[in-house]
Amino acid sequence: MVNQEYKALGNSPNVIRELFMYGLERKKKLGEEHVFDFTLGNPSIPAPEEVKTGIKTILDTQEPLKVHGYSPSAGDPEAREAVAADLKSRFGVDVKGREIFLTCGAAPALISVIKALMPEKGSEIMVIAPFFMEYRPFIESNGGKCVVVPPDMGDFRRIDLEAAERLISEKTQAIIVNSPNNPTGAVYPEDVLRALADLLERKSAEFGHPIYIIADEPYRELVYDGVEVPFIPSLYKNTVVCYSYSKSLSLPGERIGYVYVPSFADDSEDLFNAVAGAARISGHICAPTLFQKVIAACADKRPDLRAYDENRRLLYDNLRKMGYECVRPQGAFYLFVKAPNGDANVFSERAKLGHDLLVVPSDAFGCPGYLRVSYCVSKQTIINSFPAFRAVMEELGV
Amino acid sequence: MVNQEYKALGNSPNVIRELFMYGLERKKKLGEEHVFDFTLGNPSIPAPEEVKTGIKTILDTQEPLKVHGYSPSAGDPEAREAVAADLKSRFGVDVKGREIFLTCGAAPALISVIKALMPEKGSEIMVIAPFFMEYRPFIESNGGKCVVVPPDMGDFRRIDLEAAERLISEKTQAIIVNSPNNPTGAVYPEDVLRALADLLERKSAEFGHPIYIIADEPYRELVYDGVEVPFIPSLYKNTVVCYSYSKSLSLPGERIGYVYVPSFADDSEDLFNAVAGAARISGHICAPTLFQKVIAACADKRPDLRAYDENRRLLYDNLRKMGYECVRPQGAFYLFVKAPNGDANVFSERAKLGHDLLVVPSDAFGCPGYLRVSYCVSKQTIINSFPAFRAVMEELGV
Repeated sequence: MVNQEYKALGNSPNVIRELFMYGLERKKKLGEEHVFDFTLGNPSIPAPEEVKTGIKTILDTQEPLKVHGYSPSAGDPEAREAVAADLKSRFGVDVKGREIFLTCGAAPALISVIKALMPEKGSEIMVIAPFFMEYRPFIESNGGKCVVVPPDMGDFRRIDLEAAERLISEKTQAIIVNSPNNPTGAVYPEDVLRALADLLERKSAEFGHPIYIIADEPYRELVYDGVEVPFIPSLYKNTVVCYSYSKSLSLPGERIGYVYVPSFADDSEDLFNAVAGAARISGHICAPTLFQKVIAACADKRPDLRAYDENRRLLYDNLRKMGYECVRPQGAFYLFVKAPNGDANVFSERAKLGHDLLVVPSDAFGCPGYLRVSYCVSKQTIINSFPAFRAVMEELGV
Repeated sequence: MVNQEYKALGNSPNVIRELFMYGLERKKKLGEEHVFDFTLGNPSIPAPEEVKTGIKTILDTQEPLKVHGYSPSAGDPEAREAVAADLKSRFGVDVKGREIFLTCGAAPALISVIKALMPEKGSEIMVIAPFFMEYRPFIESNGGKCVVVPPDMGDFRRIDLEAAERLISEKTQAIIVNSPNNPTGAVYPEDVLRALADLLERKSAEFGHPIYIIADEPYRELVYDGVEVPFIPSLYKNTVVCYSYSKSLSLPGERIGYVYVPSFADDSEDLFNAVAGAARISGHICAPTLFQKVIAACADKRPDLRAYDENRRLLYDNLRKMGYECVRPQGAFYLFVKAPNGDANVFSERAKLGHDLLVVPSDAFGCPGYLRVSYCVSKQTIINSFPAFRAVMEELGV
């Protein structure tokens, strides 16, 4: 007499976590340096020193009852203002603290927005392949339909808008845009986002209700080669931003992020309230208060990306030299590599069993035939892994 | 095109929060000492010093990547073991770390368990009036039916088992037992819980499926006069415990708690997986990792209850002298006072507008006619409030 859907979800083989757990076992047996684990998106750059000093200052100068007490459900006003001020200073949009709803990270932020934008069973949310694999359960477990826009192969920086147009229906509520992208590392340029905005405006008018963009942006600050990540609310008013400090401040375990509902979006007040209501019945009381205070102090801190950038170049350049096909990623910390044999599952299994090389086959991301290689690892792991990458290719006879 | 149910929930007038916000405004205008705010269950005893020193030690001795990185979804093994060891040492049950699922506080713990125990739309969860007002939306928003066992007036330490028996149906999945109780401060004695267990065993056999107790125990450590809180899994095997460190360690804002699914409960493995799956689609990634480490270090720390106990005696003794009827609370930090005029809403409104005395009418708790007075305040607030309590009584002519 247990809910079977949740049981299956709690029990479901997550390919990433399974590879990771396998890697842990092998590391115990062989030693860390003999296992090349590129599975997790767990930052390898430590949190900035300001986080540590910030926490200590907070503990030493503020009353524990205030530091650890409940905050308002949307967050401490000071933290919300700090987030708003940072966005305003960078993107020139007049963001207000009251438009920010602090959450326990990006996952609850996304789920609250998905729930809020689902007026009825069967409402549709679009995602663009390849996509973060949790989008589907987040949408479907709330009674929604997850509609997948097929991948625009090539450099993954474009969206197949013709396909998207065909797939938009009167039930379409929103499309999730994840840029910089997990798993490809691609960043959508402004012209692509403007074209998407045009399409959504047209379709919103046709169906008589807004179709929102849900901008899922945990990697916003992780970009290289001077690439700019367009701020989508500046291009399309009906955008809701979901953010997490997991990657930018290397705080993935601390569960702190936010939803930004611009007041210029259609039905923004209702939407903000619906996000709050959805959060409430998901068990949200407030975001962790100590880290709300850390964000109040560190919202304008940026990560030092040199290590990721060095890893990115090293991995990309060397895999290319070996003959692997992949697009030079502009953001996040993932390289999306074409399986040289055409079958990513076979490749991943061979790499794992034969060489303790752990890379994630892309089926779960809705775009088979690729391998996601997370380069948030030590430089030495990358260097050590090259013989394995070379060997698998040879073994597979490609 | 926003979900109307969530919009209403996010927007719904919460009587406690409204009174509290009113109090904040009045404090600004009149000064803190002229407003007698007994609305919130926000601890007034600071977190133990070990929390602060613990955090600093963790920051100074452990790598930031480990401190702030993702933990497994059920939590850091060390923290889970510490929780299990503490329960084992106190209650003699052989609790294992793998039976503990760490959560972002009690609300997500409860919701995950409620979802997990709801195999289909219309599944029933029972609550015992008076009850924590969020139980209803937690159950109903997941498609369940919230079945209310009417209050057993008197000292609120008994459960109306005849009524419960009449209300149990084949759809009954669980009953939530909240002891020490919010809002009454009552603790159910062992004989009452044993009688409940007998009833549930009988009914489980009759309907051919287990009916669980969901033991919602955030106040377990807040008891006075040497009262013992029975550990329900020792009395009834099909018990799932939901806990939070919000009250015992005064960390309500930090969002750290757990679900304990005993391996001796029926279907325990399925249930644990269903809790994990329900948590996953509610946006749970892991409990905040720094505070997982704090719990690993402080799971055996107990609160210093002297201030609450002193408040309890002071408030109880003086209200009784004034002629108020109330039961001497044995736990939590609430006094449940009979509205002397019979109408708690009228009393609360008069107290608020005439005397800046803020007490919560009990309608929302499913037991009209009472006032919840939270005594997690300063002693001075209690002393200052006496003339107001006296005056309202006189004005209402009782």
